Amino acid sequence: MANPKGTSMTDELSLDPENWDAMRALGHRMVDEMMTSLETVRERPIWQSVSEAAREGLDQPLPRGPEGAAKAYDDFVRHVLPYPMGNIHPRFWGWVIGTGTPLGALAEMLAATMNPNVGGGDHGATWVEAQVLAWCREMLGYPADSSGLLVSGGSMANLVGLAVARNATAGFDVRKEGVAGASGRLMVYGSVEIHSSIQKAVELLGLGSDSLRLIPVNDAFEIDVAALEAAIAADRGAGHRPICIVGSAATVNTGAFDDLDALAEIARREGMWYHVDGAFGALAALDPDLRPRLRGMERADSLAFDLHKWMYIPYEAGCILVRDAEAHRNAFTLTPGYLVRAARGLSAGEVWASEYGIQLSRGFKALKIWMSIKEHGIDRYGALVRQNVEQAQYLEALVRGTPALELLAPVPLNIVCFRYRGDGTHTEPQLDAMTAELLVRLQEEAVAIPSLTSVRGRKAIRVAITNHRTRREDLDLLVREAVRIGGQLEGAGIGSLAEAGGAPATH
Amino acid sequence: MANPKGTSMTDELSLDPENWDAMRALGHRMVDEMMTSLETVRERPIWQSVSEAAREGLDQPLPRGPEGAAKAYDDFVRHVLPYPMGNIHPRFWGWVIGTGTPLGALAEMLAATMNPNVGGGDHGATWVEAQVLAWCREMLGYPADSSGLLVSGGSMANLVGLAVARNATAGFDVRKEGVAGASGRLMVYGSVEIHSSIQKAVELLGLGSDSLRLIPVNDAFEIDVAALEAAIAADRGAGHRPICIVGSAATVNTGAFDDLDALAEIARREGMWYHVDGAFGALAALDPDLRPRLRGMERADSLAFDLHKWMYIPYEAGCILVRDAEAHRNAFTLTPGYLVRAARGLSAGEVWASEYGIQLSRGFKALKIWMSIKEHGIDRYGALVRQNVEQAQYLEALVRGTPALELLAPVPLNIVCFRYRGDGTHTEPQLDAMTAELLVRLQEEAVAIPSLTSVRGRKAIRVAITNHRTRREDLDLLVREAVRIGGQLEGAGIGSLAEAGGAPATH
Repeated sequence: MANPKGTSMTDELSLDPENWDAMRALGHRMVDEMMTSLETVRERPIWQSVSEAAREGLDQPLPRGPEGAAKAYDDFVRHVLPYPMGNIHPRFWGWVIGTGTPLGALAEMLAATMNPNVGGGDHGATWVEAQVLAWCREMLGYPADSSGLLVSGGSMANLVGLAVARNATAGFDVRKEGVAGASGRLMVYGSVEIHSSIQKAVELLGLGSDSLRLIPVNDAFEIDVAALEAAIAADRGAGHRPICIVGSAATVNTGAFDDLDALAEIARREGMWYHVDGAFGALAALDPDLRPRLRGMERADSLAFDLHKWMYIPYEAGCILVRDAEAHRNAFTLTPGYLVRAARGLSAGEVWASEYGIQLSRGFKALKIWMSIKEHGIDRYGALVRQNVEQAQYLEALVRGTPALELLAPVPLNIVCFRYRGDGTHTEPQLDAMTAELLVRLQEEAVAIPSLTSVRGRKAIRVAITNHRTRREDLDLLVREAVRIGGQLEGAGIGSLAEAGGAPATH
Repeated sequence: MANPKGTSMTDELSLDPENWDAMRALGHRMVDEMMTSLETVRERPIWQSVSEAAREGLDQPLPRGPEGAAKAYDDFVRHVLPYPMGNIHPRFWGWVIGTGTPLGALAEMLAATMNPNVGGGDHGATWVEAQVLAWCREMLGYPADSSGLLVSGGSMANLVGLAVARNATAGFDVRKEGVAGASGRLMVYGSVEIHSSIQKAVELLGLGSDSLRLIPVNDAFEIDVAALEAAIAADRGAGHRPICIVGSAATVNTGAFDDLDALAEIARREGMWYHVDGAFGALAALDPDLRPRLRGMERADSLAFDLHKWMYIPYEAGCILVRDAEAHRNAFTLTPGYLVRAARGLSAGEVWASEYGIQLSRGFKALKIWMSIKEHGIDRYGALVRQNVEQAQYLEALVRGTPALELLAPVPLNIVCFRYRGDGTHTEPQLDAMTAELLVRLQEEAVAIPSLTSVRGRKAIRVAITNHRTRREDLDLLVREAVRIGGQLEGAGIGSLAEAGGAPATH
C-alpha cells in the first residue's frame, strides 16, 4: 500500500511522560500529601482569604513552553491547596454542601485514567452507571423499571425532570412547535420555599417565571395544600393549563418536607406531572426512622437528588429518576447519522445516556459512587444521615438553652437557623446587621462556616449539616464563639451602625 | 452553656479511614497500576465486549454492609478496568473524543480532595477557574472583557450560549413571559451539518425545532452563505423574527469550517446574535498555520468549545465564552436569600458562576486544565493539533492510494470519511452494508475504533483524530486491516445479504 510520507515513526509527539517512573513518584507524593491534608484537616483553619501572593500566582500569562508536571503540582500546593472552600472541614455547614471522602478522591483518578465518554455503548463505565442507578432506585424505593441519569447536580436534575414534565404533559409536540404552541399558559406549582433552580429551569424551558405559581407555606414551612388546590382551580378557570407540581424534600432554607403524599394525590387527580426536588432530603430515606417522612416520594413522576450532598460523594454527582422511561427518552432522543448504533461492537447497547439528558459527552461520575457504596455499605450512610440530624437537634437544644441566641425556624431535619439577639434590646435592622457581621466574623476567625439566609424576612445564621466529620464538640464551639463574637459586636455598637446605613455590604 | 446530651464525643461516626496509612498504600497501588495501564495501553486490545463475569459483578444487590476500600478497588480492577471505551488507546478515532493524560487523571484526585463547590466566593478554586478562562480567551483571540464559564461539554456550552442569545435578542422579558410572549416565531439558523446539540438546545429552550432553519452546504460542506441570506429575508417576510446564526468550527461530520467572517457580517447587519460552535475546531487556533481558517470566530457573540476533545483533558471540560458579560449574567442571575453575598469572608467576590449558567453546585474542573497547560505549555498543544491534522492528511493520501478504498468527503481538518469499495461492482445498499459490518469487525478484532456516519446518504467509516497517542503507523495498520477485512466481506458475499434485507442491524 502507499506510504506517501515515508516510514519514519520517531518524529511524532505525544503528551505522555518521557519518564513514567517520575510520574509514578509524583503520584505517590500527591497521594501522601492529599491524604495528610484530609487526615489533619481538623487542625488547620477552615478557611482563609486567598493571599495576594497566591492571587498573583494565579494571574499569569498563558504559558507557552512546558513547566513540567512537578512544577504544576508545586504551584498547586503553593497557590491553591492552602485556600480550600472549607467543606472538607468538620465545621463547614454552609448552604448544602457535602464533605467528600479519601476514596472518593482516589476514585476520580481511576475514572479519569480510563477517561471514557459515558454516553452509552458496550464498555465498563456504562455498566457501572447502570448499577449505580439501580442502587439509587433501591435506596429510595423508586420503581425498578424507571429510567435514570447521573447529572452534575440538583439544578441539572431539576431541569431534566421539568423538561420531561413539560414535553410529556403539554398535549402537543413541544419539541417541534415550541412552547408558543400551547393553547393556554403551562403552569408549574411549588411552595414559596422551593429551590431557585426550579425557577431557573422554568425560565430556561421557555415557560417564563410567570408560569411558576408559588404557594404559601404553613408555620412548619411546608406547602399549604389547600392553597395549592385553590390556585390550580383558579388557574384552570383563567384558561391556564396546570401541568406540574413540584414537591420539596426538603426545603433548602429550613429542611421542611412538603406533604409528598398529598401532592402526589393532587397531581394524580388533576392529571399533572409530579416532580420531587429531593436534592438532599431524599437521602433521609436511608434512615429507617426518617423514611416515613418521605411517604409519597415514591409516587413522583420524576425525582431529583444529589449524591454529593448527603452521601458525601465528591463533586459532581447528581441524579434524576423518571418513572416513565419512554417519556424520559422522548424528551431528549435525537440520533443523527454520526451517532448511529450497531448491534455489535462498541456502539452496541440499548440505553444511550444522550437520549435521556442534555449532555452528549459525559464523564465517569458513576465510579466514585459505586466504589463509595461498596466501601462503606449503604447502612453506614443511613447512620450518618441520622447522626447529622441528631447533631442538628443537639444544636437546636444548645441554641434554645442559650439566652443570647434565638432560634428562627423549626428543626425538622438537619438545618438550624438562628441569630444572636444579645440582650434583647435591638431593633430588627440592628439584628440583621449583627447577624450578617457575625457570620463573616465566624469565617474570618476560622471558627466555622455556616451560611446566611433569610427566614420570614429576618437574617439568619443557617447551619446545614451534611458533613461526616462534624462532632457535637464542633457545635459546642460554634455556640460558644457565636456568643463571644456576638457580645463583641453588641459592645461595639454595630447594631447602631445598621440604622445609620453603615452595615456591612451584602447584596 | 447547656450541653443537653452530655460531653461524650467518642461515639460519632465518620467516613474517614481508621487506618490512613492503609489508604495511602492503596493510593500508591492505584497510582502505580493506573500509570502502568496508560504506559502499556498500546500493547493491549483497544476494546473488548464486557464479559459475562464482569456484567455479573456489576449487577449486584445494594451492599448494606462495608466491603472496604481495597475490595472496592479490587472489584474495579477485575470488572471495570479491562473494559475501557478505548479512547485512551492510540487507534481510537471514533466520534470526537479526546485521550486524557496521566497528569490530568492525577489532577482529578487533587480536585476531589479539596472538593470545593466552585460556584463562586473567595477560595482557591474560583481563582484557578478565572485563570483558566483568561487563558482560554487568550488562546482563541477572544476579548479579554468577555465572560466565560467552564461547563460539562459542548452540548451544555451550546445550550448556555443559545439561552443567552434567546434572552438577549427576543426584545421582551423572555425569562418572565416565556417564549409565548414573542410576536413572531424566533428563528435560529445553521447549516444542515451543525451538531445535533444545537437542535437539542433549541427544543429545550422552548423555541421548538420549527424555529431551527437548516441551510444547505456547498461541496466542501460549508454553509451556503447566499442561501442563508435568502432564508433570513424570506422568514422576515413571513413575519418570523430571525434572532441567531450558528456557525460551525468545524462540522462534526467532516471537519468543515463555515465562513465565520461572512456569518459575523450577516449577523451584524441583521442585528442577530452570532454563536459559534467550536466544539473541537476552535482549538485549531492553537496552530499558527490553521488559525487563519478561523477568521471571524473572534467576532462571535458566544463561543462554545471543549477542552476534553482537542486538548486531551480528561472528561468533563467544556467552555462557553460570551462577549457581552452583562447579557450573559442577565440570562441566568437569580439570588435567593440563601445565596446572599457578602463583602468579606467566603461569600465575597464579584463573579458567581451560578449567575452565568445552569449549575449551582459545580466541581473543580479548572484544576486539570490549569495543571495541564502548565505541564505542557500551550505551544505543544498547537503542535499536537497540527500533528493530528497532518495525520489525517496522511490517511487521506493512503486512502487515495488504495484502489479498494474510496474517500467520501474532503479532508479540511482532522476527519477522514471513507469506505471499502472493493472491486467496484457493488450497489449502494451493498456498500452501506459492507461499511457497517467492516466498522464492527474493526472493533471486534481490536484493530481500531473509527465511528460510522453518513455522508450525503452514504455510510462512511469516519476517522476523527483528536488523539495524542496516534502515530502514522497506526493509520497504516488501519488501512491494511480495512483492506483485509473488506476483502473477506466481499468474498463472503455480505453485499448480497444487504439486498436480501439481511444487513447487520443498525438503528
